[in-house]
Amino acid sequence: MKKIVFSLPGNEALANYIVDSIQADRGVSEFRKFPDGETYVRILSSVEEKDVIVVCTLHQPDAKLLPLLFLCSLLRDLKVRSICLVAPYLAYMRQDKQFNPGEAITSEYFAKLLSSNVDRLVTVDPHLHRRVSMKEIYSIPCEVLHADRLISKWVKKNIPNALLIGPDSESEQWVSEVAKNAGVPFIILQKIRNGDRNVEVSVPQVEEYKNYTPVLVDDIISTARTMIETVVLLNKAGMKPPVCIGVHAVFAENAYEDLIRSGVSKVVTCNTVLHESNAIDIGEIIIPHL
Amino acid sequence: MKKIVFSLPGNEALANYIVDSIQADRGVSEFRKFPDGETYVRILSSVEEKDVIVVCTLHQPDAKLLPLLFLCSLLRDLKVRSICLVAPYLAYMRQDKQFNPGEAITSEYFAKLLSSNVDRLVTVDPHLHRRVSMKEIYSIPCEVLHADRLISKWVKKNIPNALLIGPDSESEQWVSEVAKNAGVPFIILQKIRNGDRNVEVSVPQVEEYKNYTPVLVDDIISTARTMIETVVLLNKAGMKPPVCIGVHAVFAENAYEDLIRSGVSKVVTCNTVLHESNAIDIGEIIIPHL
Repeated sequence: MKKIVFSLPGNEALANYIVDSIQADRGVSEFRKFPDGETYVRILSSVEEKDVIVVCTLHQPDAKLLPLLFLCSLLRDLKVRSICLVAPYLAYMRQDKQFNPGEAITSEYFAKLLSSNVDRLVTVDPHLHRRVSMKEIYSIPCEVLHADRLISKWVKKNIPNALLIGPDSESEQWVSEVAKNAGVPFIILQKIRNGDRNVEVSVPQVEEYKNYTPVLVDDIISTARTMIETVVLLNKAGMKPPVCIGVHAVFAENAYEDLIRSGVSKVVTCNTVLHESNAIDIGEIIIPHL
Repeated sequence: MKKIVFSLPGNEALANYIVDSIQADRGVSEFRKFPDGETYVRILSSVEEKDVIVVCTLHQPDAKLLPLLFLCSLLRDLKVRSICLVAPYLAYMRQDKQFNPGEAITSEYFAKLLSSNVDRLVTVDPHLHRRVSMKEIYSIPCEVLHADRLISKWVKKNIPNALLIGPDSESEQWVSEVAKNAGVPFIILQKIRNGDRNVEVSVPQVEEYKNYTPVLVDDIISTARTMIETVVLLNKAGMKPPVCIGVHAVFAENAYEDLIRSGVSKVVTCNTVLHESNAIDIGEIIIPHL
């Protein structure tokens, strides 16, 4: 039997791409807000015994969770065979331990809510900071996909004479991988800490790279503070205005505007979170896993 | 051991009133939003083996639920003995059946989420429309409190020569009860349906009541459409500008402003939902049930 694909509001483009790519049916549903802020959900397609794909990216997650849980409960009441959640951006991955006593480990609580409402999760570059695997948090099977090869391809095609820049030693593995696949050089900036507040960042071999276009890459661009600091530093060192690439265009408050104004030549993101900076389509890496 | 009272942001006044009234401890917690919209929760008080009261009214519920569930999960991880949720306004009571095939019965899904995260629920005048008892929806013990006696007392004290008005026959039981306890007369408006769109409403014995102050009472004022129509009708019939009383000041969008401008003398609500129209304090009816 054909799979059937539903989307939460705002996820229609990826849902339609999936439908076309795997020859699935498009699930018809209705989501409305009542004037008092309550959510109305209705499914108009026949779903009994079907394998269902639900597309819902999860940035700004608090107001999105309840409609998603309602849809999943309804699908189960309508006797679907399975639910696979495609969440290109997965929220609540950062607070994964108690930094201070009494803190909620929200990554576990959020994972528990999702795990009890869907059967499988497909996501792109979740922020696995202190955890090695999604299995430590999620009790359902998770497919973790990576955007690095798409980013390499984009850099190779669009940025002549690119130089990949890692903002710190933590980023080395990821940046070196993107650089290797793009066939371009990379450097890692070095932080020199002089006391608590005084951090100097040095650009190695700056003279050698004056004619290159620096490319900064990060997984999530949220406040963009680190990226903006690096842009300012590269400008000061006399490098060309850098291209900034992020997987997830979370962009809190004015982060995007601030980054644009900081002296970049361009800001580019993957479309895991819909944003005007989206230029790298993650659709193709999802399809093989559905 | 003393009970301990926590509040979600915006519920501090009722939480403090409960602490003072039942000599409980005030739970200290921290709620923050990260720039990316995720919620941070921390409990700073000792809660092990304690009976906990959590105060969280639930209008505009979607964005409130996740922080509430996080708090409850954290309390349970910290080994509390029990959690009693005080939600003066309870959301998701309207969609309690499938009006059309494929509709989510959100009142059941919402109830299931709350029931699995708290041990007991205390609420005021939930909108039990087609249901007789909360037991049909909630699997945990629920205390359903009523604001009618507080409203009667307020009318008796503040409105000389009051005439209670029920907008339709459905409201008769409730309005007659409020009127009886206030020691004032009441009338029920009569709807005369002439075809689908033409509904006339008649005011019985209008001449007899020209010197009374009409008082309209309803449980939830959300869009306020029915109340505004009734106000316009009473004005046309030559009655004095009415006083409008609601239990729950939900007030969707511009409903409050529209109601104020419709020709009322005053709009008064209970403080189950914080709003500038609050004048009737529901604290005293909650205390005996904690």
